[in-house]
Amino acid sequence: MLGMMMNAPLLVSSILRHAETYHGGTEVVSKTVEGPIHRYTYGDLAKRSRKLANALKKLGLEHGDRVGTLAWNGYRHMELYYGVSGSGFVCHTINPRLFREQIGYIIEHAGDSVLFSDLTFLPILEALADRLAPLKAVVILTDESHMPKSDVLPNLVCYETLIAGESDEFEWPVFDENTASGLCYTSGTTGDPKGVLYSHRSSVLHAMAISFMDVLSLSANDAVVPVVPMFHVNAWGLPFAAPMVGAKLVMPGPNLDGASLHSLFESEGVTVTAGVPTVWLGLLDWMDAHGQKFTSLKRVAIGGSATPPIMISRFHNMGVTVRHAWGMTETSPIGLAATLLPKHEALSAEQKLMLECKQGRPLFGMEFRIDGSDGKPVARDGKAFGAMMVRGPWVAAGYYNTEKSPAHAVEGWFDTGDVVTMDEDGFVQIVDRTKDVVKSGGEWISSIELENIAQAHPAIKEAAVVGAPDARWGERPVLVVVVKPGQTFTRHDMLDVYTGKISKWSIPDDVIIVEELPHTATGKLLKTAIRQIVLDEYAKRSPDSTLAG
Amino acid sequence: MLGMMMNAPLLVSSILRHAETYHGGTEVVSKTVEGPIHRYTYGDLAKRSRKLANALKKLGLEHGDRVGTLAWNGYRHMELYYGVSGSGFVCHTINPRLFREQIGYIIEHAGDSVLFSDLTFLPILEALADRLAPLKAVVILTDESHMPKSDVLPNLVCYETLIAGESDEFEWPVFDENTASGLCYTSGTTGDPKGVLYSHRSSVLHAMAISFMDVLSLSANDAVVPVVPMFHVNAWGLPFAAPMVGAKLVMPGPNLDGASLHSLFESEGVTVTAGVPTVWLGLLDWMDAHGQKFTSLKRVAIGGSATPPIMISRFHNMGVTVRHAWGMTETSPIGLAATLLPKHEALSAEQKLMLECKQGRPLFGMEFRIDGSDGKPVARDGKAFGAMMVRGPWVAAGYYNTEKSPAHAVEGWFDTGDVVTMDEDGFVQIVDRTKDVVKSGGEWISSIELENIAQAHPAIKEAAVVGAPDARWGERPVLVVVVKPGQTFTRHDMLDVYTGKISKWSIPDDVIIVEELPHTATGKLLKTAIRQIVLDEYAKRSPDSTLAG
Ligand SMILES: Nc1ncnc2c1ncn2[C@@H]1O[C@H](COP(=O)(O)OP(=O)(O)OP(=O)(O)O)[C@@H](O)[C@H]1O
Ligand SMILES: Nc1ncnc2c1ncn2[C@@H]1O[C@H](COP(=O)(O)OP(=O)(O)OP(=O)(O)O)[C@@H](O)[C@H]1O
Ligand SMILES: [Mg+2]
Ligand SMILES: [Mg+2]
Repeated sequence: MLGMMMNAPLLVSSILRHAETYHGGTEVVSKTVEGPIHRYTYGDLAKRSRKLANALKKLGLEHGDRVGTLAWNGYRHMELYYGVSGSGFVCHTINPRLFREQIGYIIEHAGDSVLFSDLTFLPILEALADRLAPLKAVVILTDESHMPKSDVLPNLVCYETLIAGESDEFEWPVFDENTASGLCYTSGTTGDPKGVLYSHRSSVLHAMAISFMDVLSLSANDAVVPVVPMFHVNAWGLPFAAPMVGAKLVMPGPNLDGASLHSLFESEGVTVTAGVPTVWLGLLDWMDAHGQKFTSLKRVAIGGSATPPIMISRFHNMGVTVRHAWGMTETSPIGLAATLLPKHEALSAEQKLMLECKQGRPLFGMEFRIDGSDGKPVARDGKAFGAMMVRGPWVAAGYYNTEKSPAHAVEGWFDTGDVVTMDEDGFVQIVDRTKDVVKSGGEWISSIELENIAQAHPAIKEAAVVGAPDARWGERPVLVVVVKPGQTFTRHDMLDVYTGKISKWSIPDDVIIVEELPHTATGKLLKTAIRQIVLDEYAKRSPDSTLAG
Repeated sequence: MLGMMMNAPLLVSSILRHAETYHGGTEVVSKTVEGPIHRYTYGDLAKRSRKLANALKKLGLEHGDRVGTLAWNGYRHMELYYGVSGSGFVCHTINPRLFREQIGYIIEHAGDSVLFSDLTFLPILEALADRLAPLKAVVILTDESHMPKSDVLPNLVCYETLIAGESDEFEWPVFDENTASGLCYTSGTTGDPKGVLYSHRSSVLHAMAISFMDVLSLSANDAVVPVVPMFHVNAWGLPFAAPMVGAKLVMPGPNLDGASLHSLFESEGVTVTAGVPTVWLGLLDWMDAHGQKFTSLKRVAIGGSATPPIMISRFHNMGVTVRHAWGMTETSPIGLAATLLPKHEALSAEQKLMLECKQGRPLFGMEFRIDGSDGKPVARDGKAFGAMMVRGPWVAAGYYNTEKSPAHAVEGWFDTGDVVTMDEDGFVQIVDRTKDVVKSGGEWISSIELENIAQAHPAIKEAAVVGAPDARWGERPVLVVVVKPGQTFTRHDMLDVYTGKISKWSIPDDVIIVEELPHTATGKLLKTAIRQIVLDEYAKRSPDSTLAG
């Protein structure tokens, strides 16, 4: 028997309607690519999103068509989020930091019909001119006075001109809440970027879940800055969650350096923000160097890669609460947030800090399963580790335009590719990535643990650990390091660093010194390339062997 | 084109699974009908709910069958919520405060197969013995040592015995999230109680929505007491929301007097509670009389009927934040919560208080429409009033086992029967009920406004205003009052009270003194009966006229 409740689909347009109707005067403030600060309200955002919807219709788009965006966080990008998805098209946010080749691949793979781009990405567009030729339009997110001239792309459309003549009346269509709303490709750390096709339902439920007290604690009394870009898993859902709760939304534009962020936070009375550790390092260092404080900031969400304890302490010392969170493109992204429990009150400050450094505990809606190397669930003791699998209403069931996904091999589950421990309260700690863990004689050795230990050595600038093929053990760990100018680091130093800290058989067999370590476009260590460095080095040392001596 | 996200239905059982898996050690504390305090954990709740699920299966229940409950807030009632709904049956909570005739009507109308009842309701059960005869079982929520003996009902089943032998393993079935999960009848203020059939989807979405910062702000760091009964619109969703966020749950049992509540709040470190104004009046008065304070309480949600400003002030003075909320059985219940906005910071304390006395602003997910007496939307100025219609995923689309619902006459909307104003930020203020508003010469006069003014007079104990039929105006307001012992109140006093406070044509034509005013089973003024009092009085005064002289 079915219940007798209204059939009201969860649609992205319902978020905008709510914000316009009950928070219509609340501000959306954007640092623009053109320079000045732009201010308007949710009421204006809603009106201009409807103008855009009318313009999109005229471009001849059809239900389900993909619309690409190459843009920083700003009000026009917000209009695209709502105008595109609200109309039943798919808002495909593209990461401009990817290599050009990857961007071209993604636009083609997604089959984008139209591309909207910030002014500043003209060089990318020109480099990809061939691939953009089949598109219905390439639109520059600016006004006539800022329109660039391009010989390579003579037909660029001006965004403001595109929507200028349109009516601001438009009835958002009502459709199945499982309709696709957005498309975002993964960062490409472990291979080619893969497309995740979000639905209206998943976007709305995720936005609700992250607004909870124990996740981001969002309220109409907040001023929220998504520092994490809108091309990076929908800025972690904040472009949906902020209007949902009626919070003031502040968009940082392209400049994410310490000085720019601090001045924006202070001038706009920002209370909540979210971003990756690298950005916060820049901000905190700048503030220390300039003796600055936060006068309004209350909470910062940190995720995307592990947050070092010292970063959490530095925020604490500035009176700011940290919410370390974990997520993936495939999980919309947030699945875990490290909010402490009443039972943790009795812990020492240091113990609390160690817990806050974990990736967090499960949001309601997300289910987790952690399978050890034997395929059986591991003990929930915070020590045993295994492959983390997840499921839930905002988890990808497959990849766009991709036949087979090994990550979806286990029926009903998505394999995150993260190797983790979980404690009895559900606090997860990432130990490594499945692809990076060194599988030595049936045991798993965490490359990240070995990297962190090496990283603490004063001579080392950056450290990576990868598995090198080994005839006897399958794989053995090898340390690859960049040494600080004027310093040295020997195999002997390496043994000193590790002895007593980890079990003997986990100590790397060798250390290789390099000038530089390869990184992905988003700044993560590129382990595939580092593995190649090791293979090349071994080949050099002993031409007929790839094994450590 | 559909998104490629997992199809994970929103089920009530997923809340219990989350609480067991990640908050398994968090306490559920209950004051019992038998006397002592009972303590266990979400882990225990989950286990015993599964035992119950196995027992229900043996009773021969089929998918969609209704299971009645007559019970106070306690752990066994929680097991019913999850054991019954989780299994795909419908948990039908019955209000034991209703008149027996109404209870019998509801059990029959719902077609309950089994009834679970607290020990203390034996007299009700015995009085309804005939109507209970066709049921599969009548189960008493107690253990063997407390089982009552009844000559009228010789086959009563003991709850603890029923589940004792069952396994605590049970796989919660997975089904369409629109499946019916619960059934609750309205309070019967304006006619016969009507059944609202909740779905799993509506229950989960409502629980998510009320956990938001600007609604009840629920966290794993809270200890929550639903003082509002579980038979009253699912205790406003707290039995779902508390385990969803992992909050400690404290259940007050049958004693809702000031002394009992205060001692429970203090001994259990309660931080959040929710209930109707009457209960808080009792608590605040008792605390004043005994010079008591709150040492842990942070937030109180008040709703169900209007909250007087003085009550909000009294809580503020005790350091407790008030969340005035509005809801109905048909809206799961919460649709509005009066959390202030940043723009209100500049207001005076008194202006803020007046806003907090309003019924609140819309939760995300709920849509509102307010139609004036001419059927057109009224101005959003906080002054113009009209009939409030709502829609959303947790709003009833009709009534159980009822052909035609006038409240659903407007396609896609539910007419709340409340007459309200709304301001530009969405703050709603209830002016009256559609049925109680006095329709005089095409204008609407709020009976509640007139009652509040009269209520402030020192001689008046309780006041009601109803419309009396009038040949010229259609209806004219009449005041009906109970006078305090030893006091008097004349027509002259009435004119004094109103003159200058309201427009002249709104002043009641007459005042009638009565010994007592009739109330519904849940303590609301019974306007239909009061209208009859007026008619009878007029008939007495002038046998051939029902009109005011
Ligand atoms: N708080 C965190 N701490 C540590 N690692 C994190 C955290 N949050 C996210 N991550 C890492 O980031 C990954 C998700 O990143 P993202 O979806 O951007 O792409 P990617 O996995 O790096 O790229 P690809 O899937 O294309 O190889 C997670 O699997 C996890 O390994
Ligand atoms: N905060 C509040 N302030 C004033 N009135 C409220 C508030 N919350 C709820 N109400 C009133 O309670 C009504 C809902 O109550 P409920 O669903 O328990 O049954 P009822 O409407 O009293 O009974 P019936 O529908 O059977 O006549 C609302 O329509 C509204 O009039
Ligand atoms: Mg990945
Ligand atoms: Mg009603």
